[in-house]
Amino acid sequence: MSKARKFVITRLFKGEPKVSDFKLDSEDIPVLQDGQILCEAEFISVDPYQRAYTEGHGVGRTMIGSQVARIVESRADGYPAGRYVVGAWGWRDRTVVDVANADKDFLLPILVPDLGGLPLSLSLGVLGMPGATAYFGLLDICDPKPGEVVVVSGAAGAVGSIAGQIARIKGCRVIGIAGSDVKVKWVKEDLGFDQAFNYKTVNLDKALKEVAPDGVDVYFDNVGGEQSSAVIANMRHRGRIAVCGCISVYNESQVAVAPVIQMHVVSRELRMEGFVVARWSGRWDEAFRELGPWIREGRLKYRETVTDGFVNTPQAFIGMLRGENLGKAVVKV
Amino acid sequence: MSKARKFVITRLFKGEPKVSDFKLDSEDIPVLQDGQILCEAEFISVDPYQRAYTEGHGVGRTMIGSQVARIVESRADGYPAGRYVVGAWGWRDRTVVDVANADKDFLLPILVPDLGGLPLSLSLGVLGMPGATAYFGLLDICDPKPGEVVVVSGAAGAVGSIAGQIARIKGCRVIGIAGSDVKVKWVKEDLGFDQAFNYKTVNLDKALKEVAPDGVDVYFDNVGGEQSSAVIANMRHRGRIAVCGCISVYNESQVAVAPVIQMHVVSRELRMEGFVVARWSGRWDEAFRELGPWIREGRLKYRETVTDGFVNTPQAFIGMLRGENLGKAVVKV
Repeated sequence: MSKARKFVITRLFKGEPKVSDFKLDSEDIPVLQDGQILCEAEFISVDPYQRAYTEGHGVGRTMIGSQVARIVESRADGYPAGRYVVGAWGWRDRTVVDVANADKDFLLPILVPDLGGLPLSLSLGVLGMPGATAYFGLLDICDPKPGEVVVVSGAAGAVGSIAGQIARIKGCRVIGIAGSDVKVKWVKEDLGFDQAFNYKTVNLDKALKEVAPDGVDVYFDNVGGEQSSAVIANMRHRGRIAVCGCISVYNESQVAVAPVIQMHVVSRELRMEGFVVARWSGRWDEAFRELGPWIREGRLKYRETVTDGFVNTPQAFIGMLRGENLGKAVVKV
Repeated sequence: MSKARKFVITRLFKGEPKVSDFKLDSEDIPVLQDGQILCEAEFISVDPYQRAYTEGHGVGRTMIGSQVARIVESRADGYPAGRYVVGAWGWRDRTVVDVANADKDFLLPILVPDLGGLPLSLSLGVLGMPGATAYFGLLDICDPKPGEVVVVSGAAGAVGSIAGQIARIKGCRVIGIAGSDVKVKWVKEDLGFDQAFNYKTVNLDKALKEVAPDGVDVYFDNVGGEQSSAVIANMRHRGRIAVCGCISVYNESQVAVAPVIQMHVVSRELRMEGFVVARWSGRWDEAFRELGPWIREGRLKYRETVTDGFVNTPQAFIGMLRGENLGKAVVKV
């Protein structure tokens, strides 16, 4: 009987997760029953939400997360061996999935469509959850108009880098905020952001007042906290804010504080809405039908930070939370 | 030639306004021209926004604010002597208003309709700007459903006391937050709020978890800052927040900070929207057509904290900002 490897949590995260909070474990792979498939992970996705969704954490539990995997054996109709699927089965290299009894959106494997020659790993990035997140969060929540000023925080991340480029394609002026000079250079020079700032070395309030003296119309927020307070203080009347993430606090063990925003929310009549992409779970294809051609036409660029080897998944996760990645962070199993 | 009295700002407010930041001044009242009316203030309104809207402040300028006044002389069609009007002419006891050339919503005098025996001062309160604010802010922004849990901060204030009662009338369970035991008692015992807490003596987070273990659906926010962070941390999925004011910081001379909220905004997909009541400026009558009958039927209660004498307007304003009022704070000229 062959084995599956998996990472289990050995200690609940306190502040920044540590490699020693995880243990590489193994389990027997049972004989396949009717309605089941056996999947072998090709890429494991490491994402900020995996740190935030603590309800999925527990000592002894397999760490949460998505992967793109190949079906190596199948006893389920519609899921033939050889096809690739995306599934939220956690940090595991081999998984038996009971397709017939998977009843939740995120446990049912999603068959990867023909990517037209694009890399398989994009089904965890721009042609997967992060791409759909950027697309629906920006367009559905913020409804940006040509000529409007759009600020994106976490601009060099998996979602922010795509959200900013979509805003550019829609005719907006886009300002990125990121955490290193390398990231700032990348989003400006390679992705075509109009401006970008390193929040660690720039006074954001002053910088925004200079480049957007009439104010910001749309803010796509991946980070929350102090950076967001500075952006919100510079928004224009009836500005819209999509809150996609709050990575600035995920590793905080103390209560994080930031300048109060409500006085700006009132006086400029701002609208702020948080979202998770499951809201549009039946509609992700709409996003990919636009994003795919944009990639092929060279209008939408992506980048991946690939860590080699399943055993290095904790390191990839910790590095992503530290902001060491450009674009989407994935693990090549 | 007779004189008008007015309060001018002698020093820009720093932190809490002081009586010495104002000077009682007088000016000649010019002879009335065609299209003009002469108004004598009956009541001056003191409201939190007068502290917040610093663009109206300037050394030597008349302090901003609304009043209800009697037309004592008229050379303008449609504004006969003897009628009452509401106008945003600042802290002045007599004002010549050029009706023909008043082109902004808030400079044009609003004729007070027949109040059916209710006090004139209500046209600055529940049947005026604060009443319309509570009505549209709660119903248009939050769309509360029967059975939902509604939290109101500043619950004993001019707007909060009305917003909470409207929520009750609409079948919601209403929790008030206020700054003294007297206020808590008033909103519970007289206004019929289901629960209320004194934020100065209670751990709000714990209190909300106890009385609303399944979470808060709607938050009508008059205060911002720490109280709001505690409420937002206890909201339910797809909760709605109307941000009406941010009085907790108006008197702060330092940058006020509060616990970060964006992680809750994301994970529960909350929607927060700030508003000013001018958004519905053509529709205030809709509010008063509901609020008036509710008052006469005894379903909606109001209270006023009346300061006597125009000369005491600064004291009334400072006291209101300190939270010394129950219900609407007005000055009887």
